[in-house]
Amino acid sequence: MLRAPEELRTVVESYLGEVAFAPELGLLEEAVRYPLESGGKRVRPVISLAVGEAVGAVAEHVLPAAAAVELVHTFSLVHDDLPALDDDDERRGRPSAHVAFGEATALLAGDALLAEAFRLALSYPTPMVGRELAQATLEMIGGQYRDVTGETADLASLHRLKTGALFSASVGVALWVAEVPEGDQPPWRAFGDELGLLFQIVDDLLDGDGYAEAHGVEETRRLADEAGARAQERLDVIPADTSVLAAIVADLAARTA
Amino acid sequence: MLRAPEELRTVVESYLGEVAFAPELGLLEEAVRYPLESGGKRVRPVISLAVGEAVGAVAEHVLPAAAAVELVHTFSLVHDDLPALDDDDERRGRPSAHVAFGEATALLAGDALLAEAFRLALSYPTPMVGRELAQATLEMIGGQYRDVTGETADLASLHRLKTGALFSASVGVALWVAEVPEGDQPPWRAFGDELGLLFQIVDDLLDGDGYAEAHGVEETRRLADEAGARAQERLDVIPADTSVLAAIVADLAARTA
Repeated sequence: MLRAPEELRTVVESYLGEVAFAPELGLLEEAVRYPLESGGKRVRPVISLAVGEAVGAVAEHVLPAAAAVELVHTFSLVHDDLPALDDDDERRGRPSAHVAFGEATALLAGDALLAEAFRLALSYPTPMVGRELAQATLEMIGGQYRDVTGETADLASLHRLKTGALFSASVGVALWVAEVPEGDQPPWRAFGDELGLLFQIVDDLLDGDGYAEAHGVEETRRLADEAGARAQERLDVIPADTSVLAAIVADLAARTA
Repeated sequence: MLRAPEELRTVVESYLGEVAFAPELGLLEEAVRYPLESGGKRVRPVISLAVGEAVGAVAEHVLPAAAAVELVHTFSLVHDDLPALDDDDERRGRPSAHVAFGEATALLAGDALLAEAFRLALSYPTPMVGRELAQATLEMIGGQYRDVTGETADLASLHRLKTGALFSASVGVALWVAEVPEGDQPPWRAFGDELGLLFQIVDDLLDGDGYAEAHGVEETRRLADEAGARAQERLDVIPADTSVLAAIVADLAARTA
């Protein structure tokens, strides 16, 4: 019996709230937990758990990998918010980490989130979960660099790096945890590749930038619907019960926040 | 035939100069390579290779793990030099990364160095190399946090976190690569634990801070000699040819830069 996205989200929240960090972090732990507590949608780890359940894994076994993906995402938010990068004072309605704790602590908290992500990804006997995460992290950093320097005019490849890589990894880590043979992974990975694009187009639509700025609202809405339909088609060819993932795709396409 | 430290250093230099980074980093790669090119002593990766050769591994097989340790060290230097932390404009006689490339790029280059370190550590079939690195990285970050906040008055535990953890890991990763059974590792690890302390005491002596400030130059010299002697004693009980490592210990104790 597969669990609905909202149930999986509760499982993720509870795990993130209780996960033990390295005691050697000392009082830095407070600044590491702070950006994790801000109640995001947890869409990436929920995808990991849903993929895990669809391929027959116990969701709880996928949790460390799912949390690792969320920690990498959170690390990127903490560093991106710093004055040297986007200089954002707020994040999800709360002071961003560097406003709450100071720049030095926020910088180190971001570093610690990344290292903790790898610690979690390395709790499995296979190194593949960690490899998937390292590759996605490097793509994400490359994307952020292009965004900061304005080096890339091509919005699609920028989004693929900045957002798509980690969405793909949220699918990929679950496949490795569930020991899905590499030869059986391509249909899943084709699905993962669409997810990030869908998320980003809708994001641009809600923020009025990126695609919305480049193509206008109507055209962007059409692009989002197309991306959602493609993600759905990718699911349709996968020989598994992908109903929960279909619901996640529908939620992503229709989200208004 | 074991190779001398200087030969191992050449092997490390050549590997670091040629190692391929993720192509997705794009033009950020220049800022990732810059702090790696500054010709440090490479003491940590040389220790990894020397331990590897002493336990019968081919040094070249240890190289990715050794380089991973050096990348974590370099990541920490790039972030520590940032204005938000130590605000150091120079590093080894050259402009530090944020002076050469700007704060945003230096921040992302540090992030990329850490992610690349894990990519290298994860190139082995065992996750243990990566686990060793993640644990040491978290201890190092915890140490840097205590240093920045002045939270810890205890110099020994601060040094153990800030410096000792990564020195211990430089020994530990080589043991995992060489598949030394966990039960045979304790004498090696006891040696690794002494190395960091020796390095840090001599560092304080050369910089006139830390131990030198707290205990005076003469007493600090005596503490350094004691740490060197203890490291040597740890080597003496290891049933392997540890002559190259003994030479490294002697170099560390006698270094003047």
